[in-house]
Amino acid sequence: MIVVMKADAKAKEISDVIAKVRSSGYVAHLAESDEGTIIGLVGESDTPLNVDDYTSMPGVARAERVKAGYKLASRAFHPRDSRVPLNGSHMGADKVLVIAGPCSVESRTQIIEIACAVKEAGATALRGGAFKPRTSPYSFQGHGEKGLQWLAEAREVTGLPVVTEVMDPGLVPMVCQYADVLQIGARNMQNFTLLNAAGESQHTVLLKRGMSSTITDLLMAAEYVLAHGNQRVMICERGIRTFETATRFTFDLNAIPVLKSQTHLPVIADPSHAIGLREHVEAVSMAAVAAGADGLILEVHPDPEAALSDGRQSVALDDFKVLMENVRRVAQAVGRTA
Amino acid sequence: MIVVMKADAKAKEISDVIAKVRSSGYVAHLAESDEGTIIGLVGESDTPLNVDDYTSMPGVARAERVKAGYKLASRAFHPRDSRVPLNGSHMGADKVLVIAGPCSVESRTQIIEIACAVKEAGATALRGGAFKPRTSPYSFQGHGEKGLQWLAEAREVTGLPVVTEVMDPGLVPMVCQYADVLQIGARNMQNFTLLNAAGESQHTVLLKRGMSSTITDLLMAAEYVLAHGNQRVMICERGIRTFETATRFTFDLNAIPVLKSQTHLPVIADPSHAIGLREHVEAVSMAAVAAGADGLILEVHPDPEAALSDGRQSVALDDFKVLMENVRRVAQAVGRTA
Amino acid sequence: MIVVMKADAKAKEISDVIAKVRSSGYVAHLAESDEGTIIGLVGESDTPLNVDDYTSMPGVARAERVKAGYKLASRAFHPRDSRVPLNGSHMGADKVLVIAGPCSVESRTQIIEIACAVKEAGATALRGGAFKPRTSPYSFQGHGEKGLQWLAEAREVTGLPVVTEVMDPGLVPMVCQYADVLQIGARNMQNFTLLNAAGESQHTVLLKRGMSSTITDLLMAAEYVLAHGNQRVMICERGIRTFETATRFTFDLNAIPVLKSQTHLPVIADPSHAIGLREHVEAVSMAAVAAGADGLILEVHPDPEAALSDGRQSVALDDFKVLMENVRRVAQAVGRTA
Amino acid sequence: MIVVMKADAKAKEISDVIAKVRSSGYVAHLAESDEGTIIGLVGESDTPLNVDDYTSMPGVARAERVKAGYKLASRAFHPRDSRVPLNGSHMGADKVLVIAGPCSVESRTQIIEIACAVKEAGATALRGGAFKPRTSPYSFQGHGEKGLQWLAEAREVTGLPVVTEVMDPGLVPMVCQYADVLQIGARNMQNFTLLNAAGESQHTVLLKRGMSSTITDLLMAAEYVLAHGNQRVMICERGIRTFETATRFTFDLNAIPVLKSQTHLPVIADPSHAIGLREHVEAVSMAAVAAGADGLILEVHPDPEAALSDGRQSVALDDFKVLMENVRRVAQAVGRTA
Repeated sequence: MIVVMKADAKAKEISDVIAKVRSSGYVAHLAESDEGTIIGLVGESDTPLNVDDYTSMPGVARAERVKAGYKLASRAFHPRDSRVPLNGSHMGADKVLVIAGPCSVESRTQIIEIACAVKEAGATALRGGAFKPRTSPYSFQGHGEKGLQWLAEAREVTGLPVVTEVMDPGLVPMVCQYADVLQIGARNMQNFTLLNAAGESQHTVLLKRGMSSTITDLLMAAEYVLAHGNQRVMICERGIRTFETATRFTFDLNAIPVLKSQTHLPVIADPSHAIGLREHVEAVSMAAVAAGADGLILEVHPDPEAALSDGRQSVALDDFKVLMENVRRVAQAVGRTA
Repeated sequence: MIVVMKADAKAKEISDVIAKVRSSGYVAHLAESDEGTIIGLVGESDTPLNVDDYTSMPGVARAERVKAGYKLASRAFHPRDSRVPLNGSHMGADKVLVIAGPCSVESRTQIIEIACAVKEAGATALRGGAFKPRTSPYSFQGHGEKGLQWLAEAREVTGLPVVTEVMDPGLVPMVCQYADVLQIGARNMQNFTLLNAAGESQHTVLLKRGMSSTITDLLMAAEYVLAHGNQRVMICERGIRTFETATRFTFDLNAIPVLKSQTHLPVIADPSHAIGLREHVEAVSMAAVAAGADGLILEVHPDPEAALSDGRQSVALDDFKVLMENVRRVAQAVGRTA
Repeated sequence: MIVVMKADAKAKEISDVIAKVRSSGYVAHLAESDEGTIIGLVGESDTPLNVDDYTSMPGVARAERVKAGYKLASRAFHPRDSRVPLNGSHMGADKVLVIAGPCSVESRTQIIEIACAVKEAGATALRGGAFKPRTSPYSFQGHGEKGLQWLAEAREVTGLPVVTEVMDPGLVPMVCQYADVLQIGARNMQNFTLLNAAGESQHTVLLKRGMSSTITDLLMAAEYVLAHGNQRVMICERGIRTFETATRFTFDLNAIPVLKSQTHLPVIADPSHAIGLREHVEAVSMAAVAAGADGLILEVHPDPEAALSDGRQSVALDDFKVLMENVRRVAQAVGRTA
Repeated sequence: MIVVMKADAKAKEISDVIAKVRSSGYVAHLAESDEGTIIGLVGESDTPLNVDDYTSMPGVARAERVKAGYKLASRAFHPRDSRVPLNGSHMGADKVLVIAGPCSVESRTQIIEIACAVKEAGATALRGGAFKPRTSPYSFQGHGEKGLQWLAEAREVTGLPVVTEVMDPGLVPMVCQYADVLQIGARNMQNFTLLNAAGESQHTVLLKRGMSSTITDLLMAAEYVLAHGNQRVMICERGIRTFETATRFTFDLNAIPVLKSQTHLPVIADPSHAIGLREHVEAVSMAAVAAGADGLILEVHPDPEAALSDGRQSVALDDFKVLMENVRRVAQAVGRTA
């Protein structure tokens, strides 16, 4: 249920509503809207929720049930676009922000070289994997904490904030020491232990859609993080599994406008995984921005053929420059910058 | 197999190769490329195809097997973009062409009103169904030949060529009398009897991807039409079936750049079916153009809520105008017009 | 809407209801049930259907709307299992019937050899393709009418009725001359022109599920045939398209009990296409029968490796004998014969 | 790579091969086969693997590369069926074993009542969730450790071993104290941190297929557990996500024979999740056994309509008895017991 306060509601009226929510056994979350403060009630309690109990309180404009399973992620609770701070800009604002870097951090030199190159081309943040979720136990699993240290060095050199994946809930505190954004990968989208740990960390989270997750599943997963009071969540469409085998996954472009209409959270796209073919990453990137994506996350590599992982979908540094220019043109065509 | 002639090959040398192809029991198709004339060999014969038999002939630059199952649809046989004439423009050229109209032709007045509106907004051709493939035998099946006559009247009034679906191979000749472009719908993409009839008609064909067809299946279906010597074929991505239920189908945006790299045929998108939600048709349209689509086919209706079919995905006439402007801006951003 | 007559309703009362249905512009179809005669109303008319208009008539037990889009195919209209005559037995009765034969009729000798072998092993009918739907226009398309003649000869020799695919609505009358059962293939499940022609023919129809058709779509397609008064329809689960690539299609076993609960039509399975790997066809066949399938349609070949089509999924004649014995054991375990 | 020793190889010859494997930087795993001891080499090392280095050693019959990504899970490494001990029987042996119980452990009384009932009906083990992976953070998440204690009490009363899900790698040691089998759920199939923790625990593992995981992905996930030397792994087909909405998931029956041919691990089925409709769970169970499943895991509840989770797919206790009898008959038809 959400309770929408009148635009001129007094602080006391708002705190009275919050007090009532809490005394009924629910948790209250606050959001601002053009209409007035919105109070979202979530959690479980034996006290039934009754709309009339709230509409009769002073300062309350209206109260209504949220039909969707996700509450804090919904537009009903938070009508305005959320903006997640990133390197002095905000994901979710006018500028389309690009996060770029290698699939895996392979060496100190490699990550610093790439960081410098993507910064020059206009990227806002650096991605790079230190802990890699690999289908095979015998594949390269990432450099672990050493990789995180190299990422932190690359940040020092370039000023780019670091986006990196965490897979183990027990390692969330350690990864938070090095990373600016915790990435939760597609395979872990419904790893609820990890979602809870990421929520509790109060660190910025980039949550990728599972390869067979519906749009609703994705928003429910985001709700796990939000329920801990952690509002800095970006969600990412990265391709779903279908019968088509010409591409690695099927980029669900539809998800972008649908997500933007259902949630206030920033929505980004991962064209590298979504198509899996480097020669077409640019086309998918441009399409994502044309459809309303707030940002992109892209795999780049100085020598894609020699990459330790995901070489087939990594864009070479020179091609990344061109891609950025083309994305910028599309961003302008849709009234944004990049 | 394809045989690529030298740029300065003499007519006699070309016709000698063609004669050899025919005497071996194969059919020869011709295409022009920057390199020189290309001769494509298709069909079945007891004579095995031997590359060396052709490379040794005068005027031949090289000969090679085409690995893909489709031959005439491939870039190997026809490296340049094919251009299909439409209303004085060409689908496959710089200008992004838009085909618009109602799902079903509902009445003479309706189709003329819509034709005038979409023309004014910048559409190049008029769509409208007279024979409707409906899941239920009890749903409205279209006005049949009367619908075709109304479409022809709308063409007279506006000059817009008519794109309409044909489902019955026996009706291809009749539909050709009224329509400029024969549409083969998703449910009939592998109706080989219909594909053969459309190929034989030598009429322009708009072939939609089946909802569970791979990109290769789609190109093989186009090959059926091309094998009859009918080169005026446009192919259309219109959404595939996946587990996602928030949208009617899943628009396979990836298919656009992949198709453009594998075939010379014009590639268009059908955002109306692909997402099935009118409020998001514009976003998908812009994305398709950003990804390289040569054209769009869109459902519009003066009063979508009252449409006899597909109302949920039909765009209102005023919204269509805005959509056209936004598509134009994206087209310019990718170096095209619209 | 269906109108259920009382068990002791008089003939005059039934004909009065039918007369009222017709005068309202609808078509009446009749079915018998334990409760009494059921009259199904289908079609479109400007006269609104009103339950009360019928419940007040003499001899009427009750009237109710059928929620599903399919009416004549539903259990509501026809509570008892329909039985479709086949070679002295009935598909839909206790005995599990097996239709077996090659993918394509390759020669007179081949089809007669196979017919004799499958008959000896216990098959009830012979399958074999004379018109083949092939993804590529350059693949073997079947022997056409000559293939039908060979099938008819095989029937003469063995007494096995012939099941063969028809793809062209214009050829339905010709195929009916040779075949006992018209097969409508997966790619044509929503070829409504063909469904109408098959319905009008009043010939027995075997309708395969499209590879991306829902269970509801399949029953709606059957409804097209039934709406012509042709009640001899069997429906067939033959595998759907999913992301799994280890098998040719994904056999939707769930569909068997779901279909049996929603429709009275016999439900059969096509393990050959559904898994596409001959070594596993037996396991799928046994599972289908365990789940309640009324019959099986199977591809067998004397020399699978040399088959002109579908060799990978065709079972050798000796293996077919063993398969039949194993299927029989499972049939007995579920209270049926085979 | 695998090295197959001669049947009469001496212990010294075997240990020499193992020593060579280790000195090259690989890990050696052993399996017995009818041919002789098989030594599997896994892991990463800078020393390239060379077949000839091993075939030339005394006592070696042959050495070969394993093409599949999974090594220890493959039939090549371990040709015989693995048998996993469970309550005095073995999963993977002739008897089809049934694991049954509620979705969630709801109370001490509930789990003991159900344990007694399923034992009487013939179940071999008890399932019940104490930690529940729920799509919504606001849904009942299970009773946690208290639930585990109740499960342990139910085991004391009935003697049935306990199968329960673990989601948090940090809780693996605690869950091992109470449970006989660690279940890893579909949403965590590629939670590699959890797979490693389960492998290290040396506890029996029941690994469910992810809802969009291929058969190969599933075997690779099992390989993570096996790579820790933990050989007690059962794998479970529980339905995949497809476009069909009439059922909760699509039971991939094909996976059963395909898995049985590719791996030596016991393969079980979860009909409850795979179809999601209690009235059809029996049909799917019988089909799974007919196709070769070694066991079943089923949700039962004394009052399905009142269940705290998964009520729609839980079978009532009386129906479970009937189901067991019918499964038994099918098991006998395929030469097994149940």
